[in-house]
Amino acid sequence: MAVGSERKVNITPIEGIRLAAVESQIRYANRLDLVLVEIAPDSTTAGVFTQNAFCAAPVRIARQRVEQCASRYFLINTGNANAGTGPEGELAAMACCDGLAEIARTSSQQILPFSTGVIGESLPFDKILAALPALYETLSADAWESAAQGILTTDTRPKLASASFTANGSQASISGFAKGSGMIRPNMATLLAYVFTDAQIEKPLLEKILDRAVKNSFNRITVDGDTSTNDCCMLVATGKGSLVITDSDSEAATQFQSELNAVFEQLATDLIRDAEGASKFITIEVSEGASEQECLAVAYTVAESPLVKTAFFASDPNWGRILAAIGRAGLSDLDIESVTVALGDTLLVSKGSVDAAYSESAGQAEMDKDEIRVRINLGRGKVSERVWTSDLSSEYVRINADYRS
Amino acid sequence: MAVGSERKVNITPIEGIRLAAVESQIRYANRLDLVLVEIAPDSTTAGVFTQNAFCAAPVRIARQRVEQCASRYFLINTGNANAGTGPEGELAAMACCDGLAEIARTSSQQILPFSTGVIGESLPFDKILAALPALYETLSADAWESAAQGILTTDTRPKLASASFTANGSQASISGFAKGSGMIRPNMATLLAYVFTDAQIEKPLLEKILDRAVKNSFNRITVDGDTSTNDCCMLVATGKGSLVITDSDSEAATQFQSELNAVFEQLATDLIRDAEGASKFITIEVSEGASEQECLAVAYTVAESPLVKTAFFASDPNWGRILAAIGRAGLSDLDIESVTVALGDTLLVSKGSVDAAYSESAGQAEMDKDEIRVRINLGRGKVSERVWTSDLSSEYVRINADYRS
Repeated sequence: MAVGSERKVNITPIEGIRLAAVESQIRYANRLDLVLVEIAPDSTTAGVFTQNAFCAAPVRIARQRVEQCASRYFLINTGNANAGTGPEGELAAMACCDGLAEIARTSSQQILPFSTGVIGESLPFDKILAALPALYETLSADAWESAAQGILTTDTRPKLASASFTANGSQASISGFAKGSGMIRPNMATLLAYVFTDAQIEKPLLEKILDRAVKNSFNRITVDGDTSTNDCCMLVATGKGSLVITDSDSEAATQFQSELNAVFEQLATDLIRDAEGASKFITIEVSEGASEQECLAVAYTVAESPLVKTAFFASDPNWGRILAAIGRAGLSDLDIESVTVALGDTLLVSKGSVDAAYSESAGQAEMDKDEIRVRINLGRGKVSERVWTSDLSSEYVRINADYRS
Repeated sequence: MAVGSERKVNITPIEGIRLAAVESQIRYANRLDLVLVEIAPDSTTAGVFTQNAFCAAPVRIARQRVEQCASRYFLINTGNANAGTGPEGELAAMACCDGLAEIARTSSQQILPFSTGVIGESLPFDKILAALPALYETLSADAWESAAQGILTTDTRPKLASASFTANGSQASISGFAKGSGMIRPNMATLLAYVFTDAQIEKPLLEKILDRAVKNSFNRITVDGDTSTNDCCMLVATGKGSLVITDSDSEAATQFQSELNAVFEQLATDLIRDAEGASKFITIEVSEGASEQECLAVAYTVAESPLVKTAFFASDPNWGRILAAIGRAGLSDLDIESVTVALGDTLLVSKGSVDAAYSESAGQAEMDKDEIRVRINLGRGKVSERVWTSDLSSEYVRINADYRS
């Protein structure tokens, strides 16, 4: 299942970036499962990584290497997360990087490994090593779609986004892809997302720009509240285009940030539309809260409540479950009299109970939609937040009871 | 679905307590849905109530009245939670109490109302008022089973527990019943639980004893993390027996507490065995934590992870999901090298990755059981905690997508 039909995207290639994907049979046959991204010298790279204490071996390596020197390659496999694998897992990931370093005649330190798939099984690094020569041979500037395809696990379709624009008189482009379907509640990072631009941006500024873009995109989505051990989001600036951004307060930086945010939001919402078992795309908007923290507490409590999520699956305007979730979100001194809840433009709850003008048929009409907006006004402050989520369907249970991920 | 077969319980009647249950057709026909408990004068009553900000009208009334004077009646309906119903909801609940007060020739203040069922619909108090005379007429000392039956909603079987013992040379009994199947993660309270004793205990001490009993029973269970708007747990001491407890440090008090804890644990674990869609009964034990708070954070994060719960449903020893849940539980400076995870007596994880002696067949044998113990040792302190939970099955989704509760 997935919400809506697949979005057709015209990807603008990014000068300085080449990509390739092959079938290496890590877990399944006849499936692109190994992806290589080549980054031109003198590019800058910024990354954010999962906060899960049991982060995977490749995450520990990539996090360290991105700090130490300029990255030249991303090597990404699916089918095996190489997480919970201890010191052996790190050796396996490094062996893959070493193999590639030899072929590409570069330092292993400049290669960042990424893995996604089943946790706790040994990485079959021999299969990866065997596939590397063919992978390296087929690097091309246009292989965006097969790269996006090659990082998928339970996803039913690739997620790509692209933007071209002029800032400060210079032309620039941003293109990227992401994956993620379950075990999704990123914490300061996301599942796997790779975004590239031809603009020239120094690393400290690139990191700042990445953090801002992640905050309102990948860090505002949840499928099941389960933060993965393997979340990574990488942003690369090749500097091969004419746009140069040096000052974070400049108009060009502001415009670049805005274009990048749009690309990130597109990818993040694509993830939710293709969440495991998803039949609904749900936006939870919380307004007039006293702080970002309390708005997010309410939004995530509603977004992750199994009872709210099953009501969405059933298209049941069961607003009592939304109310119960708000009520247990841990807000101190919540005055229920000042809370309003609406589905789209239909007011459900005012002054703590059902609104006088509410009709079940109006609620039903909102719930029958594929894309639903839940609007919660706390009436006690000036802060707003927004989180995207999916419903909890029998298909989600089937996928996660059948599939060892 | 439910885990294991129904437990046969011999209930010892409690002197000073009479009960009755009738069909009043609040939501469904041919179903006991209205229960009355009569409490002899001079009994003491203690209660704990949901912390949900959107607590139901009857909860607001019962919480106030139990403080103000001696309770004489509990009036409990299912089929309608009378929650999210605003001031009208309180008027409806009070109308029911007023009707009973007239029949029973007592003050309405001495009647505590309780409701469970669908949230956000008006309480059909006319149906309740119409049923009250027959309900009052049939009060009997032996109607425990029909009372336990009459408070159920999606539960598939009644939950009763009873204990008789001698303390300080005096005979005493404790009997009680509870309900709850979904929207279960009690917060300082439980779904509906009513426990009675013939011991004589003053109210302040009774409250203290109740808090202790609730802490390690109803406040250590979760089905879906959803704290209900209607949770209430009531403990009544009629004082009609020979046991008198006055000193909380006495041997008699200690023994009474221990017997009461056993009754509460029996009822709490019965709730989990009969949780919505449950096919597994799971105990999460966290040991060697630095604090109660961090042990509970780990236990509840594992217990409420949709991915862990679906793995239990599938009987899949997918320990990677348990590890990922521990890793996102928010513990600062967690050294994954000191964490061990076992299923029953089978060690899964040591030093942050799979144990050398672990075999998939040993893990599978543990997961195939109906009752599973997950033992997590954090290796960084001296505190232990234990939480009970159920799995997440397609049946849970079916129940909550089909049933408006």
